[in-house]
Amino acid sequence: MTNDRGTLVVISGFSGAGKGTVSRKLVEEYGYSLSISATTRKPREGEQDGVDYFFKTEHEFLSLVDYNGYIEYAQYVGNYYGTPRKFVEDCLKEGRVVILEIEVQGAMNIRQQYPDAILLFITAPSASVLKNRLVGRGTEEPAVIAKRMCRAVEEAESISVYDYIVNNEEGRIEECVEQIHSIIESESCRVSRRAEFIAELKAGLAEGAD
Amino acid sequence: MTNDRGTLVVISGFSGAGKGTVSRKLVEEYGYSLSISATTRKPREGEQDGVDYFFKTEHEFLSLVDYNGYIEYAQYVGNYYGTPRKFVEDCLKEGRVVILEIEVQGAMNIRQQYPDAILLFITAPSASVLKNRLVGRGTEEPAVIAKRMCRAVEEAESISVYDYIVNNEEGRIEECVEQIHSIIESESCRVSRRAEFIAELKAGLAEGAD
Repeated sequence: MTNDRGTLVVISGFSGAGKGTVSRKLVEEYGYSLSISATTRKPREGEQDGVDYFFKTEHEFLSLVDYNGYIEYAQYVGNYYGTPRKFVEDCLKEGRVVILEIEVQGAMNIRQQYPDAILLFITAPSASVLKNRLVGRGTEEPAVIAKRMCRAVEEAESISVYDYIVNNEEGRIEECVEQIHSIIESESCRVSRRAEFIAELKAGLAEGAD
Repeated sequence: MTNDRGTLVVISGFSGAGKGTVSRKLVEEYGYSLSISATTRKPREGEQDGVDYFFKTEHEFLSLVDYNGYIEYAQYVGNYYGTPRKFVEDCLKEGRVVILEIEVQGAMNIRQQYPDAILLFITAPSASVLKNRLVGRGTEEPAVIAKRMCRAVEEAESISVYDYIVNNEEGRIEECVEQIHSIIESESCRVSRRAEFIAELKAGLAEGAD
């Protein structure tokens, strides 16, 4: 049972919960499409244009905003980040599953524009595991750690916006990836997503015993 | 991620869509519990008390009604059918998945009493396949076939009550059983079912960077 229209899947989660790796594995293993964000931030070492981000000047970024070229965009710490509209819309028209790895604010924008998007939040199995990850190897400044912790508290507040919360346990990333795949497959059986099939079924039955 | 409280799963579907076989396989393969209905209908050949139904006299059935002993019950063609409350409640308390194989009316009653029950409707892959199954081998009276068809049209109208519609294709029952298992697993990741875990996570993080 596939949808005629594709499925938009938003993946968010705590910093260090492994969103990026999970998203890449979903693409590799299940052939899903990954939306690449545009940003005005400078590339970091090793980052490639068109792979990690589409790197743009502020002028380039903002002209695309004028043309309604992003399905959501936001400014963080002086840089713009946005989800290019065309790629996502093309994928949906082709009936594909498209993954957006974005932050909470973006996820809420997506929910408004695409009410049938599936919103997933990736977490560590417990607060203490999460804290250990955030604290890291103990080499970080206490101020940096405190800031991360503060952010995690904020992120936790936003979980209620999401449809699903998925556990990504250390060394068991495959389980997390399979669980997400399974959620996407299960969602395709939702009565609310099968309106066309159900209408056909009803019409076919109503034709009587011919 | 298991739920502390169990999960109630309602399985309905078109006559001949294989609900009974699917339910039995879910029990055998995944260790789910199957609720057995009580009825005042006489046992048919091969039916066993406590396996297929709990066979009861009308007096027995109705005294349990007086004690609020059924989570739902209804009268069809002169006989009573009901879902005994104790078994279901005990399973839920133990955190088990309990399957109820019941009709639309019963499913709607369950939805009201257990808003977080998962309601599944099993279908054939198309109206024509379904019609062929209902028509059978062509040996049935036209009136019998017309009646079945009429019932299927009514059943199709009720699909909107359900959460999921699952395909049970001829010769591919395992796919259907796996799909249902996968839906139940996915539902356990729903944010709405993970309130306790999310609360713990928030509380743990709020304790700060200790």
